[in-house]
Amino acid sequence: MIFRQLFEQESSTYTYLIACEKTGKAALIDTVKSDVPQYIQLLRELNLTLVCALDTHTHADHITGAGELRDLTGCTTLLGEEANSTCVSHALRDGEKIPVGELTLTALYTPGHTDDSYTFHLTEGDEQYLFTGDTLLIRGTGRTDFQNGSARDQYQSLFEKLLVLPETTWVYPGHDYKGWTRSTIGEEKAHNPRLQVKDAVAYVELMSNLKLPNPKLMDIAVPANRACGKH
Amino acid sequence: MIFRQLFEQESSTYTYLIACEKTGKAALIDTVKSDVPQYIQLLRELNLTLVCALDTHTHADHITGAGELRDLTGCTTLLGEEANSTCVSHALRDGEKIPVGELTLTALYTPGHTDDSYTFHLTEGDEQYLFTGDTLLIRGTGRTDFQNGSARDQYQSLFEKLLVLPETTWVYPGHDYKGWTRSTIGEEKAHNPRLQVKDAVAYVELMSNLKLPNPKLMDIAVPANRACGKH
Repeated sequence: MIFRQLFEQESSTYTYLIACEKTGKAALIDTVKSDVPQYIQLLRELNLTLVCALDTHTHADHITGAGELRDLTGCTTLLGEEANSTCVSHALRDGEKIPVGELTLTALYTPGHTDDSYTFHLTEGDEQYLFTGDTLLIRGTGRTDFQNGSARDQYQSLFEKLLVLPETTWVYPGHDYKGWTRSTIGEEKAHNPRLQVKDAVAYVELMSNLKLPNPKLMDIAVPANRACGKH
Repeated sequence: MIFRQLFEQESSTYTYLIACEKTGKAALIDTVKSDVPQYIQLLRELNLTLVCALDTHTHADHITGAGELRDLTGCTTLLGEEANSTCVSHALRDGEKIPVGELTLTALYTPGHTDDSYTFHLTEGDEQYLFTGDTLLIRGTGRTDFQNGSARDQYQSLFEKLLVLPETTWVYPGHDYKGWTRSTIGEEKAHNPRLQVKDAVAYVELMSNLKLPNPKLMDIAVPANRACGKH
């Protein structure tokens, strides 16, 4: 497997390049439109063919590069069916397998941050990887107060779908605002302050007290992302 | 091996945590003073003991956290002997081995960006890692126009010490300004525009034409770093 983590400073977004070394087929998770030229450069230099651009959800803080990448490379674009996006090549469902050469990403429906939030799960040899978008962050979780977010759903997504995976599973989030690049399920279970609550009721209360301002780009980003970043 | 890459946004600096899983002993490479509380948190949460804080060179763009980490943890601080820093616990020489539990970092003297620039080399199983500081960047090299920098020395450091290593060797730089997190020796040989020159003379000419402004923090950072960040 070829694996690269890329960071976009303005929105503190992580984008992931995952490729099958044998076939040269590649996927990009959570791209940022302004960095599309960089992705094209890296794909070319590593001699890879982009087969799909996936988004974990309809982002409110940056504009996806998926549509532009499809125009430039002919790749497909993928987003959860709950997004009701008419522009995507294919709308994902819970449990769906996404082939990338000989690798397979599994789409896990993990609503809560938004009602269209997915986590992508990959097993490669002895290692398991989760690309958690804004569902599970390093020592945090994504806010649940807009885009049909639900703290109760997020609690279920976290505790029933993600934290049940092996403790050594790598956690690669959609953002980090303090410069940390990865974690593990074991580390988050032990040290993520939001995961120390005793039950769903306590989690809902915790999340309802955050009182965060809306993302600056939200009114532009959400409609743009429903249009694959080409609005 | 436990391995974490951390990013400090203001100076686009990468800091590396390397630890021996068996003994719990850890090293930090190129720390940033303002992030010391984060390093202490991560060391505590991963149950690690910091044995040394290394700097690849006397930085001109940020202030090292080494001195403060020594005060807080009792670790040693290491910097090349050419830095003539009277505060470090130990001054490194070319080829010196630095034990971190059962891991060993080898200090390679790679002058050019500054006259006290070192690269740290680690072999772990089948993998080789280079922590290149500002000697070799992803698709770039560190400027050579201050702190006794020398493009001729840097050419030698690059072509005779680093690019001779296996193509699969991981390159983890001291900075990246476009959000790329790692590369390999093979990738840099093929695609780093500064490494496509035909000889040392051409490299010296290329570097002498960069005409970059001085780093904003230089007049503060260099004396502070000679004092282990505690000036």
